[in-house]
Amino acid sequence: MREFDLLSQIIDDWTGPEDSVLIPPGDDLAMIRMGGARLLVGVDQVVDGRHVDIARVPMDLVGRKAITRSLSDVAAMSARPVAVLVAATLPPDLGGDRARLLVDAMRSTALAHRCPLIGGDLAFHDEAASPLTCSVTVLAEPADHPPVTRAGAQPGDRVYVTGVLGGSIQPDALGHHLTFEPRIDEALALAASLGPRLHALIDLSDGLGRDASHIAARSGVQIRLDAAAIPARDGLDWRRALGDGEDYELCWTASGDVPQTLEGLPVTMVGRVCAEPGHGEPRVVVEEGGRVIDVTEMGWQHQT
Amino acid sequence: MREFDLLSQIIDDWTGPEDSVLIPPGDDLAMIRMGGARLLVGVDQVVDGRHVDIARVPMDLVGRKAITRSLSDVAAMSARPVAVLVAATLPPDLGGDRARLLVDAMRSTALAHRCPLIGGDLAFHDEAASPLTCSVTVLAEPADHPPVTRAGAQPGDRVYVTGVLGGSIQPDALGHHLTFEPRIDEALALAASLGPRLHALIDLSDGLGRDASHIAARSGVQIRLDAAAIPARDGLDWRRALGDGEDYELCWTASGDVPQTLEGLPVTMVGRVCAEPGHGEPRVVVEEGGRVIDVTEMGWQHQT
Repeated sequence: MREFDLLSQIIDDWTGPEDSVLIPPGDDLAMIRMGGARLLVGVDQVVDGRHVDIARVPMDLVGRKAITRSLSDVAAMSARPVAVLVAATLPPDLGGDRARLLVDAMRSTALAHRCPLIGGDLAFHDEAASPLTCSVTVLAEPADHPPVTRAGAQPGDRVYVTGVLGGSIQPDALGHHLTFEPRIDEALALAASLGPRLHALIDLSDGLGRDASHIAARSGVQIRLDAAAIPARDGLDWRRALGDGEDYELCWTASGDVPQTLEGLPVTMVGRVCAEPGHGEPRVVVEEGGRVIDVTEMGWQHQT
Repeated sequence: MREFDLLSQIIDDWTGPEDSVLIPPGDDLAMIRMGGARLLVGVDQVVDGRHVDIARVPMDLVGRKAITRSLSDVAAMSARPVAVLVAATLPPDLGGDRARLLVDAMRSTALAHRCPLIGGDLAFHDEAASPLTCSVTVLAEPADHPPVTRAGAQPGDRVYVTGVLGGSIQPDALGHHLTFEPRIDEALALAASLGPRLHALIDLSDGLGRDASHIAARSGVQIRLDAAAIPARDGLDWRRALGDGEDYELCWTASGDVPQTLEGLPVTMVGRVCAEPGHGEPRVVVEEGGRVIDVTEMGWQHQT
């Protein structure tokens, strides 16, 4: 297990005694009960040099991405965003104009999803070489149905994705990873359409291989993907479609029929859910011709 | 106005259309309505080289401080903490053991206040010289009384603080800024005791001069402090008591009598609230003998 995974597990290790925690850490968002309400909440961050390169990317797109990444986590629960908070530490030479551009883009992107920016904190690094970090906390509420977690996939389910995958990060252009729309409306339409037949849901941020492995691990199943079915962007190889990451599309498992499109976006069946693999067997495989390839670890590690 | 203030105002500029926002950004925490519940929420951060020096301070105290700073914001509203979330970006050479120490300290400190850690994100910087940043989001709920904001101070009120002020940051020792207890119980006892006579409340993080100016500006009043009354730590000058910062004590304005102690902690009357100052007149002054000194900007800028 890589150090990144190990450290993320530190936070996900859930030992809380609180019966008010309805969905513990480790899903796209946690859910708690507060008074008569249920609150979904999560935090994510954008770090210069890792998720974005502020030497190349305009600050308004940096701010936009910081918010849309978090809104994609709301989509991944099929919930409604309520509000966001931002904490950023800026290089001392960033300048007030670029700082304002960053915050204004975060505010307007959030408001465009009826989700006001209700708080934050800005600080400066001492050293010019210190990179920008920006964390976004998103608050959400359940829609007319319960939030959909990663944990409900069942053997016999089919596996689906929206849109096309791979090629999101383009070194010399503003790729999909900067301009994507979080699939909130699509996720709400999906849950409204399928009801309890929608078993597990996630957004594709790391790449289909690693993200499907999150569903498989939480659900105690194996996922088998069909190489020929995976919808790759611009004729890319399926390995790119699985491994490039930052697609911000939806991936889910369901029984029965599903719509062919969601809000106009194509839906593709890419595989099926099987029984829990034996010890040492892979959580996620791709079947290509007669071969079976372990792709559990195939995904983007946010390494630039 | 310093750039720091200017930038913080970017976030506090409140243009949200939502009538569900009950306390907008700019107070210690914001409050929103969600379903039938009221939720208080805020985000704060600890940055190496600015709020703490991880070359000197053990990681468990870094993690403790990241949480207690946020819990002090809950105290500043006289509310009850509910949960925290953490996002941290770590130097690549920090090591797994120190990272785990950091997160474990955050979790246990939060849990000690009945406040589980329900989510987070860890990332690594690419460059060894990049400093640790750690943002903490805190969720809280009103107690048996409405949250107390910075905005309610009235001319004729007296101004009070808990504990002693100044000397929190000691270069060669583990000062109060690393070991303080957030004054949650004291703030709850205060509101229970005073009821609607408790008009405005804040925690002292920047220093009494600057923090009192937040109350004065939000409430449209002037605050006049009495140099001889300010309770300084270890015989420090009142200027140190006002300007050192990171006291994490409570400061409030109220009418009528107040308790002499809160949960055993001494309470001191340090000044009074006067009518709104004229244009260009200071928000906060100290009276020392016959002199009147503008201390609106006297406080800690989190500059190491």
